[in-house]
Amino acid sequence: MSTPAIPRRLPRAVREQQMLDAAVRVFSRRGYHAASMDEIAEQAGISKPMVYAYLGAKEELFVACLHREGTRLMEAVARIVEPDLPVDEQLWRGLRAFFAFVGAHRDGWSVLYRQARGQEPFAAEVAAMRGRLVEIVAGLLGRAVEAVGHRAARPADLTAMAYALVGVAESLADWVVEHTDEDPEVTATRMMNFVWLGADDLLRGRSWRPVS
Amino acid sequence: MSTPAIPRRLPRAVREQQMLDAAVRVFSRRGYHAASMDEIAEQAGISKPMVYAYLGAKEELFVACLHREGTRLMEAVARIVEPDLPVDEQLWRGLRAFFAFVGAHRDGWSVLYRQARGQEPFAAEVAAMRGRLVEIVAGLLGRAVEAVGHRAARPADLTAMAYALVGVAESLADWVVEHTDEDPEVTATRMMNFVWLGADDLLRGRSWRPVS
Repeated sequence: MSTPAIPRRLPRAVREQQMLDAAVRVFSRRGYHAASMDEIAEQAGISKPMVYAYLGAKEELFVACLHREGTRLMEAVARIVEPDLPVDEQLWRGLRAFFAFVGAHRDGWSVLYRQARGQEPFAAEVAAMRGRLVEIVAGLLGRAVEAVGHRAARPADLTAMAYALVGVAESLADWVVEHTDEDPEVTATRMMNFVWLGADDLLRGRSWRPVS
Repeated sequence: MSTPAIPRRLPRAVREQQMLDAAVRVFSRRGYHAASMDEIAEQAGISKPMVYAYLGAKEELFVACLHREGTRLMEAVARIVEPDLPVDEQLWRGLRAFFAFVGAHRDGWSVLYRQARGQEPFAAEVAAMRGRLVEIVAGLLGRAVEAVGHRAARPADLTAMAYALVGVAESLADWVVEHTDEDPEVTATRMMNFVWLGADDLLRGRSWRPVS
């Protein structure tokens, strides 16, 4: 039997994507510290010196993975949102895109995001991405408040609510990655049911109070 | 000037708490990898060999910190919940205790939890704690469903909702640690307003639907 022919000279961009695919997979399975450049090179079908030459040492390679996955995620969400729609529809579409992305890139989510978040020097990078996301969501909520005309919301309230929304989405993403293959549309609707009814009531002035 | 007298022979339990206090502070500021046993010993006012003798090497010391902070948090929440109260009141009291704990132990939260979560071999430990918390919350929600008598909820729905609730609490804890000194009661009420109205509607059969 003959080995199938492997093209020897791929464009640089293609090679880089292959290396990043392999790196995301290996970081995902082994964790950052236990991941070896040997395994990444082997998985990418590329020599180790070439990985170093293209994308640098382990730390730089991890940052490159983090950037690629983060940018892909933000683009997937941004592409789908149409500013002319009602705010809840925008949110639902953004969430549907988000859960679809997470379901299709489980390695990217569970490791790059979860691992990077707790480890310097990557944590600051993830915190910055998350900060941008919180601002976008706070902006959406501000427009929702204007739309129902209830009252001028204080910026701190909008920020806290945006943190809460981002927290729900992240936690449900963990749930998706660990427990389910359900349609992203179902997960997005699940989340809207959970948060939007409450947010909407709240924006209209209905509120919960402790009895004691 | 004379140096103030320092008691030389403290009980072992007191010494250990001093070491753990110092370790949580140093891990919090430096991160796990950059934290040095020298600095921890210095902050605890105890010799480095004694830190090793009492609590082991850095990895064991970090696990000891994680256990102490995690157990304290769970106890603070469990102490306050009274099973005879309505479910929303139990949830609110649990949240109030949770945000009070996080506000008073910012180092413990932002680092032990956030750092530990993304790093093997600690991540599995944190995942197990979080899993227990999700189960407790899913149990509470199950009782809430029975209380309103709406319908038999599917276990997967309760689990997903529990993930969502835990995600909101975690994200608001980050918000508290990074942005605010507000009263834990205010933060707990903020969260109830955000999630309970929606959860309650949902449990009673009202739901959100996309228009498109």
